[in-house]
Amino acid sequence: MASATFTGTGDTGSGLSTGAPAGTATTSAHPLIESDRVEGTSVYGADNTHIGSIDRLMIEKVSGQVVYAVVSFGGFLGLGEESFTVPWGKLTYDTDLGGYKTDLSPDQLRGAPSLGRDDADWSDRDRERDLHTYYGVSPYWGL
Amino acid sequence: MASATFTGTGDTGSGLSTGAPAGTATTSAHPLIESDRVEGTSVYGADNTHIGSIDRLMIEKVSGQVVYAVVSFGGFLGLGEESFTVPWGKLTYDTDLGGYKTDLSPDQLRGAPSLGRDDADWSDRDRERDLHTYYGVSPYWGL
Repeated sequence: MASATFTGTGDTGSGLSTGAPAGTATTSAHPLIESDRVEGTSVYGADNTHIGSIDRLMIEKVSGQVVYAVVSFGGFLGLGEESFTVPWGKLTYDTDLGGYKTDLSPDQLRGAPSLGRDDADWSDRDRERDLHTYYGVSPYWGL
Repeated sequence: MASATFTGTGDTGSGLSTGAPAGTATTSAHPLIESDRVEGTSVYGADNTHIGSIDRLMIEKVSGQVVYAVVSFGGFLGLGEESFTVPWGKLTYDTDLGGYKTDLSPDQLRGAPSLGRDDADWSDRDRERDLHTYYGVSPYWGL
């Protein structure tokens, strides 16, 4: 999906460039979430089935913008528990589900470039760019 | 302070008011931070002394923007350990210090409207507005 799908109105703000299409969201009962409660938030597939959960968020230190979610897709891929770094724009918070929704398919995840803490590639912008290109979303750094 | 007082150079960017201006940013060594490592990040005063640390961040679920930091100012106020909810725009990431800098004074903190988890006021926009007004920063929801 393109970030252009954002059609939110009112106080949800736009905030986004890369992401987080708000849909028609108005203020949810609890529009904010505490960082230490994010871990474990459920992720749902396009058909609303539970496919995983958020391990952690990657936050740009300066701007305070969440740019990636590291998501564990247990079983979803038939590969056991495995974590993938997903651009934030690929997740949409769904107030009804109480979690994030994504249209990622197992095949998409299988073929995705890796990006993670193990090899310090959080600081490798070329690899970040590859990841965004792969998923078809604009880089969060706006270039 | 107005966020305009930010005088960092290079890759620290500008950081703030409500938003995420990328400024002239190039890549810092580690521009991203993991949500589960944010807790405990140091907060420094205008004179670079350590005055507290981040308990947690409050993140807008939909946009993924960090909007508040809940900061413990141990001893800084002469009141023992106490937490305050501070608009994100009052903190500026300082790459040299490896933490966030703020010009908040003890008096400012003492007089601040309270906002926190205990009374579910995360969902009370009027109280959020009061807090932003008090600190002289624009509300993150852009109204």
